[in-house]
Amino acid sequence: MAETTAVGARRATLATIAEAAGVSLPTVSKVLNGKDDVAASTRAKVLRLLEEHDYVPVGTRRPANETLVDLVFTALDSPWAVEIIRGVVESGLDAVVSSMANAPHRERWAESLVKARRGGALLVTSQLTANDRRTLERARMPLVVIDPVDLPSPDVPSVGATNWGGGLSATEHLLELGHRRIAMIGGPVGFLCSKARIDGYRSALERAGLAADPELIRHGDFHHEGGYVAALELLRMPEPPTAIFAGSDEQALGTIEAARMCGLAVPGDLSVVGFDDLPVARWSSPPLTTVRQPLAEMGRHAGRMLADLIAGKQPDSRRVELATQLTVRASTAPPRA
Amino acid sequence: MAETTAVGARRATLATIAEAAGVSLPTVSKVLNGKDDVAASTRAKVLRLLEEHDYVPVGTRRPANETLVDLVFTALDSPWAVEIIRGVVESGLDAVVSSMANAPHRERWAESLVKARRGGALLVTSQLTANDRRTLERARMPLVVIDPVDLPSPDVPSVGATNWGGGLSATEHLLELGHRRIAMIGGPVGFLCSKARIDGYRSALERAGLAADPELIRHGDFHHEGGYVAALELLRMPEPPTAIFAGSDEQALGTIEAARMCGLAVPGDLSVVGFDDLPVARWSSPPLTTVRQPLAEMGRHAGRMLADLIAGKQPDSRRVELATQLTVRASTAPPRA
Repeated sequence: MAETTAVGARRATLATIAEAAGVSLPTVSKVLNGKDDVAASTRAKVLRLLEEHDYVPVGTRRPANETLVDLVFTALDSPWAVEIIRGVVESGLDAVVSSMANAPHRERWAESLVKARRGGALLVTSQLTANDRRTLERARMPLVVIDPVDLPSPDVPSVGATNWGGGLSATEHLLELGHRRIAMIGGPVGFLCSKARIDGYRSALERAGLAADPELIRHGDFHHEGGYVAALELLRMPEPPTAIFAGSDEQALGTIEAARMCGLAVPGDLSVVGFDDLPVARWSSPPLTTVRQPLAEMGRHAGRMLADLIAGKQPDSRRVELATQLTVRASTAPPRA
Repeated sequence: MAETTAVGARRATLATIAEAAGVSLPTVSKVLNGKDDVAASTRAKVLRLLEEHDYVPVGTRRPANETLVDLVFTALDSPWAVEIIRGVVESGLDAVVSSMANAPHRERWAESLVKARRGGALLVTSQLTANDRRTLERARMPLVVIDPVDLPSPDVPSVGATNWGGGLSATEHLLELGHRRIAMIGGPVGFLCSKARIDGYRSALERAGLAADPELIRHGDFHHEGGYVAALELLRMPEPPTAIFAGSDEQALGTIEAARMCGLAVPGDLSVVGFDDLPVARWSSPPLTTVRQPLAEMGRHAGRMLADLIAGKQPDSRRVELATQLTVRASTAPPRA
């Protein structure tokens, strides 16, 4: 594609756009610089033309500070986040932490990201609208997605964890202890990581010659409340499960609380397995058997991938999954005879 | 004091320093710019002279980006951190998060902070050496300390929480339930916030006409392990307490685990109160009665104070304490008759 950042080419492109839009060159400049004194309809027309001409604003090509990047979360509402942040800090990048939940103008979020002229961005969110994506692509801002909720388009580099393998090993652990009636609480239905964990659970049951009972598969929100509600439903069934693979540590803690409300001891009456291995898993009473997601390593790896992209190096692989690992603590035991 | 940032004054100062150090003006420049090709002894001499002349490097006076600040933690090892980060993000500042534990050169940490030419810094750490302090003061970098471990010098603005009042209300809650033998697990001995919580505990006992039993006051590390070890010691005493004020949520979770190991039910056999009200307090089984520290509000308030300082406004008060509040959940109950 044509080099549009050289000053001559740039002026030519902007003049063409101004002519096509029927506005002056300064008006195009105002739109580019995010000024407010341009009519909304004019602004929309100019932006569309800029996009059609695949125009790359000059400032966005050469960031003010190449080791300064944005680290964007959907929301800063989980201990989960601090693990990722630590990893990114360890990668040596200077990360400005932000949250889409706190963005003053959601609809112009990607534009503000581009305008900040950082070297690149790490996204721990998949709530990108088609508009966001276009804005980021147009600016050619180096991007790495951490733990993608949806499978991002194959050209967006991403770092995830082996969710399917984690679901498999959690369920195999319960089968080895002798459990046969094992329930699963997944995360939100559309989440890719949740789907992979459920598929791992199913595969472990199938390998053991058991059919997955659809009644035993529930969906939470990955948070405490969702785990608590789903576990209460499961424990109140005529034939309740003897073990629950809770799909996240928060949901596992909700499951332990539901067991306590039903007068059941963990692990005596009910075995519980989490997923994540947040620090809280060690602090739970009893300490939680869980599948460790290497969150800090994911942050570190994503940070290094982004540093490479900023330096113009292409990653060896655009889709990396780091290994999960089962950590056995005290919330699982053989079922009562 | 003399204005040293005007170009003329600056050259005069640097020339004086070069002369006094017996080196050339470019050598002084190299030291100022952190270049490596200056002998260590020369570097030390020039830095000392710069300090004696109270020289303020020009760059540090006018940061590259005034809304971009550093947010420095001692370590990124607690869910605690994400609450503070959320508050700072909500204050509207762009915060580059870092951790002293990850700083590549601890001894030059303050220098790198100054060199990054950010608008200011929020410190959630009190591990500043005398050297750090001098470097930051010399650069006149606006600073706000969050939750100071030591009382910072009165001219450093800080935002904390009412630790003494929190200790008082936690203990009064246990007294109202009918407990008389109440233990306290403080944090590390030198921590100011821990001292204030213990003093609040003592004052509540005194107001109820009880003397604090030194045997019932232990010290942990504010983490899970410290609470677990101290609680086991307390529960194995010939006359164990019926309630423990654990001084932090992590220590409270360690206390609940110690109770489980001793076959004691919470709150039936032992009441437990935490401090912080991290999200994990709600997820504990049973949900934890605790003293809420307004961590996000502290981050928000500190962010606004720092923005004011960067804009040249002096804060109304340099030492702010935001209110703590007792949150009663399910880990406290009257003692067994």
